[in-house]
Amino acid sequence: MSETTEDLKVTTGPLPGSRKIHVTGSRPDIRVAMREIDLEPGSGEPPVRLYDTSGAYTDGGASVDITKGLPQLRQHWVLERGDVETYQGRAHRPEDDGLKPGETIGVPVFDRAARRPLRAKAGKAVTQLAYARAGIVTPEMEYVAIRENLRVAEAREAAGQGGADGFSRDGEDFGADIPDQVTPEFVRAEIARGRAIIPSNINHPEAEPMIIGRNFLTKINANIGNSAVASSVAEEVEKLVWAIRWGADTVMDLSTGRHIHATREWILRNSPVPIGTVPIYQALEKVNGRAEDLTWEIFKDTLIEQCEQGVDYFTIHAGLRLAHIPLTAKRVTGIVSRGGSIMAKWCLAHHKENFLYTHFEDICEILKAYDVAFSLGDGLRPGSIADANDAAQFAELETLGELTHVAWKHDCQVIIEGPGHVPMHKIKVNVEKQLKLCGEAPFYTLGPLVTDVAPGYDHITSAIGAAMIGWFGTAMLCYVTPKEHLGLPDRQDVREGVVTYKLAAHAADLAKGHPAARQRDDALSRARFEFRWKDQFHLSLDPEKAQDFHDQTLPAEGAKLAHFCSMCGPKFCAYKISQEVRDIAAEQGMEAMSEKFKAEGGEIYKVEKPAAE
Amino acid sequence: MSETTEDLKVTTGPLPGSRKIHVTGSRPDIRVAMREIDLEPGSGEPPVRLYDTSGAYTDGGASVDITKGLPQLRQHWVLERGDVETYQGRAHRPEDDGLKPGETIGVPVFDRAARRPLRAKAGKAVTQLAYARAGIVTPEMEYVAIRENLRVAEAREAAGQGGADGFSRDGEDFGADIPDQVTPEFVRAEIARGRAIIPSNINHPEAEPMIIGRNFLTKINANIGNSAVASSVAEEVEKLVWAIRWGADTVMDLSTGRHIHATREWILRNSPVPIGTVPIYQALEKVNGRAEDLTWEIFKDTLIEQCEQGVDYFTIHAGLRLAHIPLTAKRVTGIVSRGGSIMAKWCLAHHKENFLYTHFEDICEILKAYDVAFSLGDGLRPGSIADANDAAQFAELETLGELTHVAWKHDCQVIIEGPGHVPMHKIKVNVEKQLKLCGEAPFYTLGPLVTDVAPGYDHITSAIGAAMIGWFGTAMLCYVTPKEHLGLPDRQDVREGVVTYKLAAHAADLAKGHPAARQRDDALSRARFEFRWKDQFHLSLDPEKAQDFHDQTLPAEGAKLAHFCSMCGPKFCAYKISQEVRDIAAEQGMEAMSEKFKAEGGEIYKVEKPAAE
Repeated sequence: MSETTEDLKVTTGPLPGSRKIHVTGSRPDIRVAMREIDLEPGSGEPPVRLYDTSGAYTDGGASVDITKGLPQLRQHWVLERGDVETYQGRAHRPEDDGLKPGETIGVPVFDRAARRPLRAKAGKAVTQLAYARAGIVTPEMEYVAIRENLRVAEAREAAGQGGADGFSRDGEDFGADIPDQVTPEFVRAEIARGRAIIPSNINHPEAEPMIIGRNFLTKINANIGNSAVASSVAEEVEKLVWAIRWGADTVMDLSTGRHIHATREWILRNSPVPIGTVPIYQALEKVNGRAEDLTWEIFKDTLIEQCEQGVDYFTIHAGLRLAHIPLTAKRVTGIVSRGGSIMAKWCLAHHKENFLYTHFEDICEILKAYDVAFSLGDGLRPGSIADANDAAQFAELETLGELTHVAWKHDCQVIIEGPGHVPMHKIKVNVEKQLKLCGEAPFYTLGPLVTDVAPGYDHITSAIGAAMIGWFGTAMLCYVTPKEHLGLPDRQDVREGVVTYKLAAHAADLAKGHPAARQRDDALSRARFEFRWKDQFHLSLDPEKAQDFHDQTLPAEGAKLAHFCSMCGPKFCAYKISQEVRDIAAEQGMEAMSEKFKAEGGEIYKVEKPAAE
Repeated sequence: MSETTEDLKVTTGPLPGSRKIHVTGSRPDIRVAMREIDLEPGSGEPPVRLYDTSGAYTDGGASVDITKGLPQLRQHWVLERGDVETYQGRAHRPEDDGLKPGETIGVPVFDRAARRPLRAKAGKAVTQLAYARAGIVTPEMEYVAIRENLRVAEAREAAGQGGADGFSRDGEDFGADIPDQVTPEFVRAEIARGRAIIPSNINHPEAEPMIIGRNFLTKINANIGNSAVASSVAEEVEKLVWAIRWGADTVMDLSTGRHIHATREWILRNSPVPIGTVPIYQALEKVNGRAEDLTWEIFKDTLIEQCEQGVDYFTIHAGLRLAHIPLTAKRVTGIVSRGGSIMAKWCLAHHKENFLYTHFEDICEILKAYDVAFSLGDGLRPGSIADANDAAQFAELETLGELTHVAWKHDCQVIIEGPGHVPMHKIKVNVEKQLKLCGEAPFYTLGPLVTDVAPGYDHITSAIGAAMIGWFGTAMLCYVTPKEHLGLPDRQDVREGVVTYKLAAHAADLAKGHPAARQRDDALSRARFEFRWKDQFHLSLDPEKAQDFHDQTLPAEGAKLAHFCSMCGPKFCAYKISQEVRDIAAEQGMEAMSEKFKAEGGEIYKVEKPAAE
């Protein structure tokens, strides 16, 4: 049975306790979405503002119509620069969706109406990097500056704090350069240096600008995509909406099998976050899965097809060179990247250099006409602890460094993909090498998984590595779900994977001392100590699960007002006793008492002998 | 309705693909249990031997009768040393179970029959530390030496490897002293120095000896225990069996409320792992939850009650001194340790020094007569990111260091409890300070949680910190379940928490370069690459979940033999293509090809300009 647009239902409505606000920039069409949470009136605490990736779907005031797509937020910004033109565009072909000539498509098709693709006028580079280098602060740059700050400075000012207390900088950033306050000019300068990117295809004006770079909040990516064995368009669109609901900053559509083009169109028209793809997957479908039949022409045609649709970044496995392949011969797990293994097979079958490498500058010419960013793929990433940091991996990384500089020459934005499976003691050197070889281009890593022995729990084995590598300097973390190595993630797996990576990214920001990070921890901890259960739930990364877990043990509504919880019960509650300790201390005068003990013990840290000695 | 022994059902039977083996030591009654997994005959791989905490419950050949308890494995070893005596023991009292005089107990009572408690003969210290210092290698020490090695040396020898390949040492251990092969003498020396302990109450002869120390495999603890609001004896005994099934090395019984004594007796008589408790919880029950009514006499009586039952280690919050309490006044989350908050309240109510501190040597005298180890509690551990590494926490740690040396003077074994909530950049200094202040006594940490914002996912926020602190030198990690901060863990939460901590501990061992760690990762990775699905499941920390997740997408039995999986499907499978790459390479001669490219490119790492330049 074919799908219809009736099947396209998505999850809408705000998260518990949250409402959508918009912060206006220097012009009225820069309206930056954030989540705002009011705390209990009795708490005396200001509202907490959180980074929000979820778009119109969580906006109580917005109407959502999947068949129409999202508003084209960036359209005017793109057009007013005067460097783009509409054109006829490439004609859609049956093989774009894996169909035989004449075969009818089995899924609904998004109605593009009169919409035609945009591209740069001849000779122009319409990338954020080109603008940044020309000294232009784009509306996109201002948008991300406001977005990154989360109005923490305003909160600090309202609280009469000038940098002290919860807002003081406290962290180890390993040489990063995170400012107290992000300005549009700082964003421009970071992009100009290649240290950050704003993925922003001119044909994806629905996307809300976001920035990926070591000196900004750590981002996460969620993968979705149908495969030859399972899933539908409706499922993929809902997976997108679901992933951004829980906080995915970008989404990669890794679809294989049929209906790739049609599925991607639905995703792009309804995505407020940048969308990434691996174009070689679709190219391979076009040659019926025979890697050796791939050609530069087929690949190039696929790139243009996807540029016109609006994909914001492409994983391109151009760093895997023929000469690297022998280095994988004695690996325990060979080549585990799909794209990498496809290109390795092509290279060996033809005994030729990887055509993505030899045509790299041709690719740059295409990408800069749409501002599609490179995500240089690590086709030789290790797939096991045994293969971590080996000669194959680092040889490819060296080539990725070389290609980064070529892409920059063409004004293309670049991020670099990284491992994989890496034990803890081998993680840091990955970041150090990447920063050095790739001129500080943003690092985008998958995990890494710190052990191979826990299939079914690899969102966790990888979150350990992700938190650490994020702390060391990775700009974006690619999520891993509990199904990794075993099966296709379902809804619950996507949620589990996204929330797990949000907590890893947040832990990294905390450890780096990011000024916008700790306010949420502190607000939640105060709520916890003061038994403001609802505030605690609302401030959680997953408010619904937090409340559900609480209610499993103490379901009564009154328990959410109770000054204890189920772990200890009323008599034992450490928080309760701790508050009583404060009460007693207040009564007796904590300061006086402190003085007394200082006097008695000489000084507070003086170690006294046990009385029995 | 009262519980009966009919309710006492526990989970038995081996994990999928595993069987119990016993490795005999220098005398026939030293029989060390391990799990052995046969791999597919076609793989040509030897069986893999794994550390096994699960006791008779997973032994297909053993009969289990909860009402009789486990065999008294260590009884003969304890008696043959000639330094213990049986005695009448303390009479059981209604208040031990929270009953009023004359009230009938509502749960089944374990039948001790004629069994009387043991204690040291007058003037003797019957601790493993005392024996180690006297140069005696006990059967317990030999047992753990065999247990820690996992016969890796034998496997290495069988494979004709002398330290190369997968068995080479590769790690960063931050100054630990992990040997290639653990000898009984090494165990003795580590215990004698106080760097390791074997928790082994002479009244818990059912326990299989295990060692906690930085130079041994990283261990994990699982907490169980009923509370005032929920659970029964049957549930707690099953939680014990369930926790060790998934790999808990020790179990702490944190019961509060009623039936504490009776529940603990069932747990001890049926536990093959050491059991820890926090005696102040039971003491507080005896004074109806009024901390200020606690006395040294009530506490002492509770200690003796639990020593006689066989508890292997006690959390004692003796390091929280009156003078430290003012240091917590401005904390965001005050005192979050239950025991810590109880003692703080007592101190303030009486304006007196903590009686656990003033009576510390009296406690040593009791513990050394049974070989109950100290787990010196960190009553002032931070309960939020904001409070991490503050003056209160480190002041207490300094006192714990002082008490460590006092306990050692009395031949008592000691471990030190640690945080808590700590952001990543503040974790390492915790280990460094602890090692220095406490003379390298083993560190036993709770998490730490690296952010406060993810209630419902705190097994993960804490596993990140646990893996790191384990790598840095923590000897045992106390698990956290997904219900932390929210509710009481159920069966699934216990399993999720234990497996999460097993993977964190294993990741730590890998990063430290522990010689017995990597064999499992490598065996599993080879199985993954070769599509030996069953082997992959069996080698997993949670074989049932791994198989279940696989079967959710590809349930057919044939799919477990398939040379692809559901993520990519047959056309895209990276492993499959990677194997084809090898086939092509083999055909064409990988070495020859490698040479050709070296010749062409000058050298393999030489970076060539892209063809288009």
